Amino acid sequence: MGTTCGLTIDPLCRYVRALVICFILLPCIQLSLGAKTRHFKWEVEYKYWSPDCVENIVMAINGQFPGPTIRAKVGDTINVELSNKLSTEGVAIHWHGIRQIGTPWADGTASISQCAINPGETYNYRFRVDKPGTYFYHGHLGMQRSAGLYGSLIVDLAEGEKEPFYYDGELNLLLSDWWHKNIHDQEIGLFTNPFRWVGESQSLLINGRGQYNCSLAAKFSSNTSISQCKLRGAEQCAPKILQVLPNKTYRLRLASATSLASLNLAIGNHKMLVVEADGNYVQPFEVDDLDIYSGESYSVLLTTNQDPNNNYWLSIGVRGRLPQTPQGLTILNYKPNSASKLPISAPPITPVWNDYNHSKAFTNKILALMGTPKPPVNHDRRIILLNTQNKINGYTKWALNNVSLVLPPTPYLGSIKYGLKNAFDQKNPPENFDSINYDVTKPPVNPNSTYGNGVYMLGFNTTVDVILQNANALSANVSEIHPWHLHGHDFWVLGYGDGKFSAENDEKKLNLKNPPLRNSAIIFPYGWTALRFVADNPGVWAFHCHIEPHLHMGMGVVFAEGVDRLSTIPNEGLTCGLTGKMFSGQKN
Amino acid sequence: MGTTCGLTIDPLCRYVRALVICFILLPCIQLSLGAKTRHFKWEVEYKYWSPDCVENIVMAINGQFPGPTIRAKVGDTINVELSNKLSTEGVAIHWHGIRQIGTPWADGTASISQCAINPGETYNYRFRVDKPGTYFYHGHLGMQRSAGLYGSLIVDLAEGEKEPFYYDGELNLLLSDWWHKNIHDQEIGLFTNPFRWVGESQSLLINGRGQYNCSLAAKFSSNTSISQCKLRGAEQCAPKILQVLPNKTYRLRLASATSLASLNLAIGNHKMLVVEADGNYVQPFEVDDLDIYSGESYSVLLTTNQDPNNNYWLSIGVRGRLPQTPQGLTILNYKPNSASKLPISAPPITPVWNDYNHSKAFTNKILALMGTPKPPVNHDRRIILLNTQNKINGYTKWALNNVSLVLPPTPYLGSIKYGLKNAFDQKNPPENFDSINYDVTKPPVNPNSTYGNGVYMLGFNTTVDVILQNANALSANVSEIHPWHLHGHDFWVLGYGDGKFSAENDEKKLNLKNPPLRNSAIIFPYGWTALRFVADNPGVWAFHCHIEPHLHMGMGVVFAEGVDRLSTIPNEGLTCGLTGKMFSGQKN
Repeated sequence: MGTTCGLTIDPLCRYVRALVICFILLPCIQLSLGAKTRHFKWEVEYKYWSPDCVENIVMAINGQFPGPTIRAKVGDTINVELSNKLSTEGVAIHWHGIRQIGTPWADGTASISQCAINPGETYNYRFRVDKPGTYFYHGHLGMQRSAGLYGSLIVDLAEGEKEPFYYDGELNLLLSDWWHKNIHDQEIGLFTNPFRWVGESQSLLINGRGQYNCSLAAKFSSNTSISQCKLRGAEQCAPKILQVLPNKTYRLRLASATSLASLNLAIGNHKMLVVEADGNYVQPFEVDDLDIYSGESYSVLLTTNQDPNNNYWLSIGVRGRLPQTPQGLTILNYKPNSASKLPISAPPITPVWNDYNHSKAFTNKILALMGTPKPPVNHDRRIILLNTQNKINGYTKWALNNVSLVLPPTPYLGSIKYGLKNAFDQKNPPENFDSINYDVTKPPVNPNSTYGNGVYMLGFNTTVDVILQNANALSANVSEIHPWHLHGHDFWVLGYGDGKFSAENDEKKLNLKNPPLRNSAIIFPYGWTALRFVADNPGVWAFHCHIEPHLHMGMGVVFAEGVDRLSTIPNEGLTCGLTGKMFSGQKN
Repeated sequence: MGTTCGLTIDPLCRYVRALVICFILLPCIQLSLGAKTRHFKWEVEYKYWSPDCVENIVMAINGQFPGPTIRAKVGDTINVELSNKLSTEGVAIHWHGIRQIGTPWADGTASISQCAINPGETYNYRFRVDKPGTYFYHGHLGMQRSAGLYGSLIVDLAEGEKEPFYYDGELNLLLSDWWHKNIHDQEIGLFTNPFRWVGESQSLLINGRGQYNCSLAAKFSSNTSISQCKLRGAEQCAPKILQVLPNKTYRLRLASATSLASLNLAIGNHKMLVVEADGNYVQPFEVDDLDIYSGESYSVLLTTNQDPNNNYWLSIGVRGRLPQTPQGLTILNYKPNSASKLPISAPPITPVWNDYNHSKAFTNKILALMGTPKPPVNHDRRIILLNTQNKINGYTKWALNNVSLVLPPTPYLGSIKYGLKNAFDQKNPPENFDSINYDVTKPPVNPNSTYGNGVYMLGFNTTVDVILQNANALSANVSEIHPWHLHGHDFWVLGYGDGKFSAENDEKKLNLKNPPLRNSAIIFPYGWTALRFVADNPGVWAFHCHIEPHLHMGMGVVFAEGVDRLSTIPNEGLTCGLTGKMFSGQKN
């Protein structure tokens, strides 16, 4: 109905109205929402690169390693046209920490949310970023994350919104580990009998840069065989210098894309105030050093309140495994000092790798900032997942409740949507293990396990608890740290404990008051971790150990919820396996 | 209608008739035709292996390297269920020399006849072998042939048929070259600027076996730095000993799956009678040594008429490129001598690498056996293909008439069948080059080239001539040998010549009398080669240099003929690219 133009719509009136709509109203809507669609055209290919001063091959995006940083505002739509320029390999990219609400097909997990993108083909990742925070993205097929397929994804507050803390500037650090052995060789070793472990990484990288044959801090080392790096700054392996002004506060955004390493980060002479974890605000707490496991992200505030005549080390080192990898280093450069001015003392020493009390103390400090949504008081279902190292026909594997995950060729999102029952085991995987008789402190009495690819079908909108139960590995007196990551959701971390979880004793200790919301959580050796989430995001979601070789050894499970509520799933990502056959009229 | 059972069909009669059909008639039909369907279930995966005594990774089939030998009779149907057990890579296997009459979708060329088989998926290769001979199979995606994905395919005469020569026994030798650098690294180098060539192979392999760190013939070498191999015979790199009895005639089946090397094969003290080339009989001729280029196969007869107290060397060496690879060796073991008894003199010396007169003399001896089909006297179309080395945006490439082939993601067989015009360049690629002005003896004046993926659309049943014209490469005074291989057909090799082909002068020299039928032919440095074939096999067919890195640098063209005559193409191999999109109802 016409308004000021009355009931008769003459051409002039129509024109004026169009003008009003086009030039006034739409931009207003745009401004008020502040939301944009951000387009990216990416090409993935291998490229020679020297991440740690030793030439090797990386999986690059648009010729860059690490891949380009995506920066967007809450409410924006990210549209990445990803072209696979590899010769023989598929590719898929996961947007780690983005829940993909309403767009489960954009989660980027090959075999789960989509077919791997074929060589020469392009896939359109289109999703909305709905929560500010520090995220990253990475390959989710084979060991392509280890190959260097990762980059930062940072979501800023919407226009006019304010963070609950103040800072003058920002520094972004994407952490990773790096092997000289190519990923194919690494991966084949995992699937070989006798088993060949990937071993410790040669280097740790900060923003894709490390030093293997030299050290930035050699002059402080008692090991005279290590030479001082002579880098001019333009090298691919030259450290990314962190330039700061004295007496300011900086937000350091930290994310760990490591394939294996659990890291500890410290900055000489400086304390850090932790304010964000996995894209969720936490109650600020101060630390001298910070543990960061694969798949985690943090923001810390750093105040440059030290002697402005000096520069300072930022170091990362390995925790949780006997470290055989040198520290990763860069320089916190107080301007106007020269970046080449070395700090006056040695870099911070990483806490002893197996000082788990240190790790637990840090982890237990992470609590939700007031105002964070609280978990439902009750759970509808509790899945207890015993993490064990096993043998299947002589091959070394990881299993959950004695099932070692092998992903099927048909993505679950399609096979569940279209009811293709031959695509995966239709039986629900086990909800529990024999908790009465299984001794988590000893190697498994019967280490045999089985392969499986069943799905935990979750009732839509139900509250699900997962208790991750650690155990002894195949060797006596060995129990490893595993950082578990959930796709499609944040979960509340209700608590950590030692030994076997006991509903009777441990239930009451769970924190329902201010548990942190996260997408990643670790289990400590011989311990358990209790998580709670609401299955309110229609789709199929991986939940897995974020140590890449562990995932490929079967350490993951698959959750599905509300797939029937998805009225349309784009077929673009489903033209493989049994969905591909179905589309082309073949019999399944 | 009933016969002996009359018009009324009672149960007993029906039973008797069924018995007759099942137990008498059907086996008779089977026997009279002698044709079988031979089923194979293959799994492709990477495996640690030591082809030349140095551990590396090979692409194995059912855990074997080389892959299993297929042996069948003329008229048999081969059915290979190929499962891709690789983690991230597609796979496709080409049955080299099998024309795939009526089954162009089974030719195994990724991007041409099918989509690469995805990880975890299975493709059914089903085709009839209609011609006896010595063939092989190999990967036809990326550099998977270089990775070791190959094996023998031997087709025997149908029951009751006889070869036009006699032999007592048979020995099968599949020849290849082997690099220590993994194929991904090799391939990335080719696509890098500055260009990195794969270099000469570390080893030559006979039936997948070579020796890198030692020599079987060290004691005959003046080079004292090479040690004598101490192999017990069970090692993966121990030579396959050729056991023979004195005074017998053996058929040696030879096939070269090399990635790069042109080889020369000789047997100490023995002469060889060449009787078959690429699955076609030739006029027998005797040689002391035999050139065999990548993609070629031969049968030679060897008579064990030498001193039966000795063993003899069989050696292969590199020709056509300055050799930096040691000879490949094994022992012709006259029983009952011990296999470990070394020959009394050094292995045969490979003719000097650039003695092209030697090569030409050999090649010119290859003529069709009487009774071989003769070529049509006239051609309907002549395509002249100038082979040049070029630059595109600084990248080193090979091109035909200035077009460097880049295969599209949608297999041509599907895109042509379904008229998907966006799938590839719709313009016919050039039929000729500027033969008046182009000086084939000098580096290109303008080395720039362009990428292309157009198709030579051939009239069905027309006779097509291809003149392959060699030229100088990018560097002065360099012109390389290229072995060209045609899929889907045999061609007649009408002649070879030096310099630029001239219709006026060279036409009359072409051999229409007894040109050999082959599927592979070489062009000599600065020379030309004239081929003729009849485009009578509906499908899309690659024609390319069989040097694997050259193909990936663009040295190939694509022919298509009679695709509209194919009433049905199985969709199984077309669920990628634009055909995949079409099947799934997406817009192309």
